[in-house]
Amino acid sequence: MPGYDMTRESFVPQPKKASKNMQFLKNSNRSAVLCALALKKASNRTELASYLNLTRMAISNIVNELRDHAIILEVSSAENESESEHGPNGRPPKQLTLADWSITVICINIRRYSVSCMLMDINGNTRPPVTRCLPAHADNAFLMDTIIQLIEEVQQAFPQVPIIGIGVSSIGPLDIYQKHLLNPPDFRNIRNVDIGAPLEARFHLPVYLDNDMNCSALAELYFGAGISCRDLVFLGFSAGVGAGVIMNEKILHGFGGFAGEVGHISINPIGPPCPCGQNGCIELYTRGENILANAGVVSFEELNALLEQKNPPRFVLNSIKQYIDAMHTLMVAVANSYDPNIMILGDIDIAFINRFLPDLEEYMNSHMLNHGYKHIKVIPSALAEAASLYGAGSIVLQRVFEGELPLPIPAGG
Amino acid sequence: MPGYDMTRESFVPQPKKASKNMQFLKNSNRSAVLCALALKKASNRTELASYLNLTRMAISNIVNELRDHAIILEVSSAENESESEHGPNGRPPKQLTLADWSITVICINIRRYSVSCMLMDINGNTRPPVTRCLPAHADNAFLMDTIIQLIEEVQQAFPQVPIIGIGVSSIGPLDIYQKHLLNPPDFRNIRNVDIGAPLEARFHLPVYLDNDMNCSALAELYFGAGISCRDLVFLGFSAGVGAGVIMNEKILHGFGGFAGEVGHISINPIGPPCPCGQNGCIELYTRGENILANAGVVSFEELNALLEQKNPPRFVLNSIKQYIDAMHTLMVAVANSYDPNIMILGDIDIAFINRFLPDLEEYMNSHMLNHGYKHIKVIPSALAEAASLYGAGSIVLQRVFEGELPLPIPAGG
Repeated sequence: MPGYDMTRESFVPQPKKASKNMQFLKNSNRSAVLCALALKKASNRTELASYLNLTRMAISNIVNELRDHAIILEVSSAENESESEHGPNGRPPKQLTLADWSITVICINIRRYSVSCMLMDINGNTRPPVTRCLPAHADNAFLMDTIIQLIEEVQQAFPQVPIIGIGVSSIGPLDIYQKHLLNPPDFRNIRNVDIGAPLEARFHLPVYLDNDMNCSALAELYFGAGISCRDLVFLGFSAGVGAGVIMNEKILHGFGGFAGEVGHISINPIGPPCPCGQNGCIELYTRGENILANAGVVSFEELNALLEQKNPPRFVLNSIKQYIDAMHTLMVAVANSYDPNIMILGDIDIAFINRFLPDLEEYMNSHMLNHGYKHIKVIPSALAEAASLYGAGSIVLQRVFEGELPLPIPAGG
Repeated sequence: MPGYDMTRESFVPQPKKASKNMQFLKNSNRSAVLCALALKKASNRTELASYLNLTRMAISNIVNELRDHAIILEVSSAENESESEHGPNGRPPKQLTLADWSITVICINIRRYSVSCMLMDINGNTRPPVTRCLPAHADNAFLMDTIIQLIEEVQQAFPQVPIIGIGVSSIGPLDIYQKHLLNPPDFRNIRNVDIGAPLEARFHLPVYLDNDMNCSALAELYFGAGISCRDLVFLGFSAGVGAGVIMNEKILHGFGGFAGEVGHISINPIGPPCPCGQNGCIELYTRGENILANAGVVSFEELNALLEQKNPPRFVLNSIKQYIDAMHTLMVAVANSYDPNIMILGDIDIAFINRFLPDLEEYMNSHMLNHGYKHIKVIPSALAEAASLYGAGSIVLQRVFEGELPLPIPAGG
């Protein structure tokens, strides 16, 4: 994009170190308690103390404060209502849960032809999403007006919940630090849009922006197929093929926020030219529309029906062979590059991909460099087409879990 | 490796959360001061306070304590020796440096045919390394005996310095969590060696193990071509081709410690078979010995001389063309996968690679997916063949900088 210079000093702000004082400690531990409960790492005071390596006294102070602010709910897990706090006297411990809608975020998903918006809470509860098409004439102003209208609509439909932030998941490329949508190819008349500032000014809420693959990966970690994982890769096969990479429970961004573009590994020097400038990029063999075009069909329903025939047409089988070869190379490359614990396949017809999952998992695990020492599971996305929208909210929740985004309660306590 | 099951529960220990109490704060801030001074992020109290977002009082308490333990040195930067501590009265602030050999580590580097050992301090000062060959009959016991002898030798040659830990950089595959060397191909009679426990028992020091690419990358970040960077990739081209990836100043390990194996991206489905089971892996086109074999020469001196001729032989030019094509694909794939700020090329003849650096940098920056928004620099390794040995010490220093490894001074203070 002419004139847009990410090498300038201001592009990646020197991350301001969190001031590690008592206030930091307090926030940090409170966020850790929320995170542990939200992600089901612990469900009572004893488990929290063990998981977070804190004293029961410290845990109880935090839990009691969050309970008094109606963020944590305490439930006696048995009939014994008078159970003592410390009671190891045979009584079951009080179960802790997060109150529904106590912490709520707005999720925005910018796709190539539409924008969606919904409310989500810290437990992954959602209200029905609202979607608007982006017509051919849509420009920057149209996009921002649409987003603002959608937000107002979902807020008005459920006005009583306090919102703590807005997350935006979008097709790329993005400047996630300045919160700008840059210049996606074939994206109506939309380019170089400041997403963050107008929304922050209008709604007086913090806004976070990240690309759809990264958001989907985080959503699968928090609410989908990756729960209880630490290191996962989400591979998405929509218009573009790319990865959202979670390492140590955090999105892998790289320096400019562009990491994970594994669809543009060139796997065939004499393959077809790719708009990126290379030849034979993996994306050309593995994205949905190319799979269909290569098999000479118009839908996955049609393709699945052909593949269930006793003798599918030879040219269909040939196109599938080419597809599987490319998937093999992609998945081994991803396993070798990131070494995840699980790999999640998304943005692809589930009946189609399910057909090949055992083969893909077997090939990858027997061809990655250090095979034999570990096994990487391959599973389809649990959130399916909703992953990216859940992900928009997940990037806000991550800031809560890391103590970056303060809770709507006094910091002192 | 038969019987070695990394999928077992114990393989990746559930990381024990640091207990975030006052002691944690104290350690954490002290380590951050050491790190900031070691990595030249700050050189006086004012800069430390600003960089770490702490009060001058907090900084001064830490600095004074470390000064009293002879770890930090204070140097008046002008003749004015009576400069006041807070003095913004026109006097230059006192410069802070880390005392040479105040914090010292033992570096071990296990290569295919040799083992090296040296002492290094927190400033990157080193004592001359000592190297032993691994003869053809070397087995597990021989390796461990050699390492122990080397450590005793370097310690005896410089006995007055207190050692805080042992870092081991090694060819892989490794179990970095259990500190085991697994089963490297063609590695004498050495396999499945417990590196950590015997050294810890013998020397009563903490031992850390990581693979040579990761160690080299960290060494370049701390002491080499990557100083002042945050996200870098070190590409190494020795017997195997692979990457050490630094994201946010930390090594990217993945779940099992196997991330960064980018040499086994298959870039040509009809290419030569690779021992990993795929065809046409990048490693086959880009590692040193294959570059020489393909050009029909026995050394880089010979190859460089041929390339300086007015009309180099056609078959040499053809082999170089194939090499450059593979390097292009590799570097674009790495840029797209990790989005680093700089890329460092190591373990390769410097006169040879320097010849191609401008082309490699230009091609990568114009063919990575989101080109035009940023520029990734490509530079040769500054530490060259010493990178991996410096890296062995760097993985110990990283534990100091993160507060995981306590300093040899009282925790209270």
